[in-house]
Amino acid sequence: MSRLENIGDYIIPPNHADPRLTRPVEGFDHFGNPVEIRVVEERPLTIFLNSREIVTAMTIGDWPEYLALGFLRNQGMLRDDDEVLGVDYDEEIDTVVVRTARETDYEEKLKKKVRTSGCAVGTVFGDIMEQVEGLTLPPAELRTSWLYRLASTISRTPSLYLEAGAIHGTVLCERDRPLVYMEDVGRHNAVDKVAGWMFAEGVRPEDKILYTTGRLTSEMVIKTALMGIPVLASRSGFTAWGVEIARKVGLTLIGRLRGQRFVCLSGEDRLVRDADPAAVPEEPRKARRKSAREAQDE
Amino acid sequence: MSRLENIGDYIIPPNHADPRLTRPVEGFDHFGNPVEIRVVEERPLTIFLNSREIVTAMTIGDWPEYLALGFLRNQGMLRDDDEVLGVDYDEEIDTVVVRTARETDYEEKLKKKVRTSGCAVGTVFGDIMEQVEGLTLPPAELRTSWLYRLASTISRTPSLYLEAGAIHGTVLCERDRPLVYMEDVGRHNAVDKVAGWMFAEGVRPEDKILYTTGRLTSEMVIKTALMGIPVLASRSGFTAWGVEIARKVGLTLIGRLRGQRFVCLSGEDRLVRDADPAAVPEEPRKARRKSAREAQDE
Repeated sequence: MSRLENIGDYIIPPNHADPRLTRPVEGFDHFGNPVEIRVVEERPLTIFLNSREIVTAMTIGDWPEYLALGFLRNQGMLRDDDEVLGVDYDEEIDTVVVRTARETDYEEKLKKKVRTSGCAVGTVFGDIMEQVEGLTLPPAELRTSWLYRLASTISRTPSLYLEAGAIHGTVLCERDRPLVYMEDVGRHNAVDKVAGWMFAEGVRPEDKILYTTGRLTSEMVIKTALMGIPVLASRSGFTAWGVEIARKVGLTLIGRLRGQRFVCLSGEDRLVRDADPAAVPEEPRKARRKSAREAQDE
Repeated sequence: MSRLENIGDYIIPPNHADPRLTRPVEGFDHFGNPVEIRVVEERPLTIFLNSREIVTAMTIGDWPEYLALGFLRNQGMLRDDDEVLGVDYDEEIDTVVVRTARETDYEEKLKKKVRTSGCAVGTVFGDIMEQVEGLTLPPAELRTSWLYRLASTISRTPSLYLEAGAIHGTVLCERDRPLVYMEDVGRHNAVDKVAGWMFAEGVRPEDKILYTTGRLTSEMVIKTALMGIPVLASRSGFTAWGVEIARKVGLTLIGRLRGQRFVCLSGEDRLVRDADPAAVPEEPRKARRKSAREAQDE
């Protein structure tokens, strides 16, 4: 293969080699023979904001600080201008405490509206829909050549997904370069870890592209829009309401991105069709194996 | 094909022909040509228990009464012996109100522990782990011939999944017969609808098998165990903690069930290996198409 040069170019690549994130599990196969399978870990992480316990998330366990920051940010509990005094992770008791200069007290908020359940961590539904109400994403360019190159690079990047399956990936990209590749048992954790990294590093969202392995549901679209990222792409499918919200906030939504194929469901105006689809190869054997894995570990 | 006779034998089959559950969405393909794709709906449903608003779930919208009952049941807010005075669904304002003879007030509970996020509706984490602590599932028999027949029947059953993708399925089974096939945008909604049906109909769990298209995470295992169902099977993968909890509560866990293949990860003692795997055909072309769909719409 050519084009492999991009694969080492991440700011944060997947933690596929971290032994703490997977574990060999014993079982018996269809013939009754003992087998050992490497599977992803899943452990609780309780997130505190100042003195308040906010949530216990089930996570593979890497980047707990980014997960905490991103979760609080995406729930609207941490503001853009909040001064974070500390993020303390205690591995022994699986907790992260985020401390802010501003006094916070989010118990009331959580008490009222609770959670949505579209295969997702809950979002404070009423509030979130209100925020999306006034939102319009900035203009941006999206070249189809970037899309194809991103999909190709990401699918060939060594990851926990390729190693052990049963996991979702979210990748923050700029033009044709994937920057940060986060994985977790839930799609939303992976996105939250990206959001936490962006918040911690003060990264601008306007020129970014978010790629996810998961389905494009309303919650995923809303989360991306609230993060200020104008483009969301996935190799998976989408729901009707996800498309509707994307159109409402002016988010460019790309679904079923595989090989030369994709569907642009919203924000077609941002698309610069500079690549000839016919010149893009179908998914290579490796990616097809990946597809089989995905099917297996949906 | 032979063995198609089973396919019409459901008490509740998938609502694949219900026009309210899908919608044509317009987009542009990779060549820039307009395309129209049928996708699943996703709409909010707010569940009330007596005078308290409990949750807003994102759902495809079928069986709202079962979803409400099952959600409340699986959250421990509706007890086995609770007398339900009414379940009122109002389509206009997307709400279901469940009324019980017993007075309930679950605001306090929700305020404290909030939600997990392993691609899931939240469970009241601390409480749930406490419940699992003392739980042991009853003995049961599981023949491998049933597993193979169930997998074959379910994969050939017309469903929203086969029609539009981007959806999860959960099937309640008894021996080799699938009884109730529920689908939804989130795995947990589909399971909750099954639980709601069981609660409404007073169905016994001890001799049942739960089949899901989704991954076997800790939350899915806990939910199945709390429902009292001793066997959980999936064509997808699993997490380490899901396996650990299954072993703890004595739940038989079957993963990666495809064609002649599967892995038994827990409760091997229940398994009666009465089928010769070598005699089971590999997945038929149609199921392989289904796998491709799954990959696409993970």
